[in-house]
Amino acid sequence: MTESANPIDFWFDFSSPYSYLLSERIDELAGRFGRKVRWHPILLGVVFRSTGSAPLTLQTPVKAKYWLIDFERSARFMGIPYHHPSQFPLATQIAARAYYWLHGQDCGLARHFAHAVFRALFADNRDISTPDTVFDIAAQLCVDRVALEAAVNDPVIKEQLKDEVDHAIQIGVFGAPYVLIDGQPFFGADRLPQIEKWLETGGF
Amino acid sequence: MTESANPIDFWFDFSSPYSYLLSERIDELAGRFGRKVRWHPILLGVVFRSTGSAPLTLQTPVKAKYWLIDFERSARFMGIPYHHPSQFPLATQIAARAYYWLHGQDCGLARHFAHAVFRALFADNRDISTPDTVFDIAAQLCVDRVALEAAVNDPVIKEQLKDEVDHAIQIGVFGAPYVLIDGQPFFGADRLPQIEKWLETGGF
Repeated sequence: MTESANPIDFWFDFSSPYSYLLSERIDELAGRFGRKVRWHPILLGVVFRSTGSAPLTLQTPVKAKYWLIDFERSARFMGIPYHHPSQFPLATQIAARAYYWLHGQDCGLARHFAHAVFRALFADNRDISTPDTVFDIAAQLCVDRVALEAAVNDPVIKEQLKDEVDHAIQIGVFGAPYVLIDGQPFFGADRLPQIEKWLETGGF
Repeated sequence: MTESANPIDFWFDFSSPYSYLLSERIDELAGRFGRKVRWHPILLGVVFRSTGSAPLTLQTPVKAKYWLIDFERSARFMGIPYHHPSQFPLATQIAARAYYWLHGQDCGLARHFAHAVFRALFADNRDISTPDTVFDIAAQLCVDRVALEAAVNDPVIKEQLKDEVDHAIQIGVFGAPYVLIDGQPFFGADRLPQIEKWLETGGF
């Protein structure tokens, strides 16, 4: 294994529009350079309490108005379907816990599930804060509903999510999407062109 | 005149790194689509008081660290010289007033002066909050030093800058660089690719 094969880390919250946009591109981009991506759903609410930040649409009205324009325009620019959710922002701990439980069993299934959750929220306007919606999404991927319902209430899985959030805060994740490549941090879906150049050139 | 010839408006603060990066590209980009750019230096400190924001490097240490990495990396990505100023952030009202006074006499000269101020701060690490530095920069462009010194203390010029800042806040400018094209707002140097596509396609 050469150093260039080190995995890329990608932190996100299922309720973050720019995380959704980056999630639709990062695996394909990394793959072109022989890299894999490790996905880490976290809870931005907890991160923001530690950094004194706020969700973009809960800042001043004038900023909220801009970000709503920019979410949709950035999606069109990237060729990704986007419908701003009626329920926004919203709680994502059930989806995140489900992700980690699935990941413990089948990494590929967890990835499909993550895409399905993002698309449910940002393309199909479904309320992913509702446990039933999360279970329905998983059921479409043939996940056992009863086992999943037990998992998202399992203290071990709850602790795993808490540890992921704590670890993210510890290493300096202050928002999402946040990508770390060989120690180099990239914040925002708009850093994809820089990520591409970084992978291409090994740093610039 | 077709609608596509409408001028583009560009608000910036001389102490804003991403404004500097955008300033190095916006005129050439606009020119390719037959557009002119109207430059509006403002005072972000005043804007931030109205929106409850703070300069990027005065946010939490973890964010400040990221933005310092990103300023320099974004500059390298864009092929623009960048040296983070020793004095940062810093006051820019003298430079902004000088700009408006020069603009009243010679629009092209004001543009040269604005580039020279940005480059003095972000390439040559000069302290542009000092009036003498601003006067030296202008003197290099053959501006009369005594007349300029009088101008930056002239209540009419002070009022002109105040009006520009007030107007910017009124129309929703909450940070810099902020670009308005046919009513469509773009915030940040990282929106240049979207600006380019917007100009190319007339909206997307």
